[in-house]
Amino acid sequence: MIEIYGHGGDVETAARRYGKKPADFLDYSANINPLGPPEEVKEALKEGWKAIIRYPDPGHRALKQGLSAQVKLGEEHILIGNGAAECMALLLMALSPESVGTIEPGFSEYRSLALQFGAKVDSIYGQQDLEYRADVNDIATLMERVQVLFIGQPNNPNGVQYSLTDLVTLAKKAHLTKTKLVIDEAFIDFIPEEERNSIASSLEKYPEVIIIRSMTKFYAIPGLRLGYALASPDLIRSMTQKQVTWSVNGLALLAGEACLQAGSSYEQNTISLIKAERKRLAEGLRKYGFTVYPGEANYLLAEARAPWTAGSLQEAMGRQGILIRSCAMYPGLTEHAFRIAVKSTEQNTQFLETFGQIMEGAK
Amino acid sequence: MIEIYGHGGDVETAARRYGKKPADFLDYSANINPLGPPEEVKEALKEGWKAIIRYPDPGHRALKQGLSAQVKLGEEHILIGNGAAECMALLLMALSPESVGTIEPGFSEYRSLALQFGAKVDSIYGQQDLEYRADVNDIATLMERVQVLFIGQPNNPNGVQYSLTDLVTLAKKAHLTKTKLVIDEAFIDFIPEEERNSIASSLEKYPEVIIIRSMTKFYAIPGLRLGYALASPDLIRSMTQKQVTWSVNGLALLAGEACLQAGSSYEQNTISLIKAERKRLAEGLRKYGFTVYPGEANYLLAEARAPWTAGSLQEAMGRQGILIRSCAMYPGLTEHAFRIAVKSTEQNTQFLETFGQIMEGAK
Repeated sequence: MIEIYGHGGDVETAARRYGKKPADFLDYSANINPLGPPEEVKEALKEGWKAIIRYPDPGHRALKQGLSAQVKLGEEHILIGNGAAECMALLLMALSPESVGTIEPGFSEYRSLALQFGAKVDSIYGQQDLEYRADVNDIATLMERVQVLFIGQPNNPNGVQYSLTDLVTLAKKAHLTKTKLVIDEAFIDFIPEEERNSIASSLEKYPEVIIIRSMTKFYAIPGLRLGYALASPDLIRSMTQKQVTWSVNGLALLAGEACLQAGSSYEQNTISLIKAERKRLAEGLRKYGFTVYPGEANYLLAEARAPWTAGSLQEAMGRQGILIRSCAMYPGLTEHAFRIAVKSTEQNTQFLETFGQIMEGAK
Repeated sequence: MIEIYGHGGDVETAARRYGKKPADFLDYSANINPLGPPEEVKEALKEGWKAIIRYPDPGHRALKQGLSAQVKLGEEHILIGNGAAECMALLLMALSPESVGTIEPGFSEYRSLALQFGAKVDSIYGQQDLEYRADVNDIATLMERVQVLFIGQPNNPNGVQYSLTDLVTLAKKAHLTKTKLVIDEAFIDFIPEEERNSIASSLEKYPEVIIIRSMTKFYAIPGLRLGYALASPDLIRSMTQKQVTWSVNGLALLAGEACLQAGSSYEQNTISLIKAERKRLAEGLRKYGFTVYPGEANYLLAEARAPWTAGSLQEAMGRQGILIRSCAMYPGLTEHAFRIAVKSTEQNTQFLETFGQIMEGAK
């Protein structure tokens, strides 16, 4: 396993393991837009990196203003963070919950951040016949026991969404149980707008709901770190009080402002590429008897056909310069589970060729 | 006052206040190396910013290895942080002290981070006749009451160091009182090597001592955020457990590695420029009856001669496009206190000209 830090995208470890340079890998273990950053971001950074000689704006004012216009919520509802992970950490610091609920399998940071900040973790499991969603009644019952509940929308690693009806049910339940409901929308931008299930626009109705978004996946800037939280002004204030001054670096702010200028064609091209290529990758895996779950995001959860395991497939692909994300360590999944990103047509062709050769025993 | 976020370097607020663009100010309120980043950093970032498409190494391995060789301490003694401020925050999160000691005037983050993480702050005051150092016996007495004590070496805003003898006395006292002694060496690189008073090399003898350094001031990369802590392996481990994954962004890591390659001529040129220019600036201020404290770093603490206050001088200079740091809000200082950075010869000439014109009533 190369997930020694608990995540995909660790090309450094892969490089040490497989004897290649970090930049030489085709990284299917991190879910980043294969189109790369929008032109606006590249334009902004080409000369703009020289702004490193100035302190970042500690108030994140320009970006916050731009986001406010985009999400149609007042700036008092927005916190800019050093990645979505920092937003989650600030939330836990602001609330100091005794118990945090998670739905497994899910993004491992929910659990590890909760433990890091001293909370007990209370988990329920998604059902395989619901594509690893949990039953909404089970989630509601969990909310009676926890002060904070994390939900991935779409969830990572399986890529499925809860319905709008389910979200509204849970938001109303959160009000009754006084549970903070954290909806992690890190990957929602990859879903066509008309198919996204989000209650972001009703946030004023649901003061227990916190929405966390990432700008690093869709805009392909994970190296810079940038995310934001949408929540009630009270909670945003408490979270801001826990944030270390200048936590968000200046180039992330600059890039974030440029992302907001990215045209709708960048968005549309990304979404249609992902849709077509996800289908092609799924077919390529199924051809060899692998199970592929019907995710809606820019990644796919799959299960290797025995005797292959996630570990043996990762090793075989890794030696050929292609990294996949083993999901064997996710609670609720088996040693066969792995996740791959959906990348460009050319990269996916290379992925499928290498995968096919390995399956045929040629490599 | 333009320090609405409690710090200098806020050109955004200045821009809104004085009707100029952020980049148009001569910023004497932030203490950044006037030579700008070393060529090695510029070379690394010119193309290297494109690495934003990859996640940062969550283990910071290359930079940690480089720093380990430079500071001559094992990697288990080193934590890389998202700025020195994050290192301080992680320390407070790891220790959860009930009481934190500060010496005023000092860097305001010691106090605000302590309060942010729920500690009581217990402060003593520097003495004007000791150039705002505190008496070492008073510090030792304070250590009997606090679990964590912050010391700036050199201190900000006055720029003076404690002697090596004093530091050793305090480190030994820390062992008796079980106080963690945090020595903030953010600006120590600006002092000629033979004049630096640091016990970093004896860290193994003093497990209660934590040294925090910044790479953003000397190497002029405050927009990227980069700092590190040196401490006992136990404490480094506890701090690392509190750090959010990928907290340090990828370009900061890249720039940090390049900083370690910077030649000694960059270091020497910086140090001799600062020494000569600090003298010139001090003389320019004293010429108009201002008091200037004899700091050793790349900034000077001064007191405006009445009727000038820090506020009125900041306003007058700000309108001419030059920002100074009011220190009127520092506990222990008066409304006349302000701080200026030491910048390049050309910039300092412009500073002194503008200052002179204001003093002569011409502007």
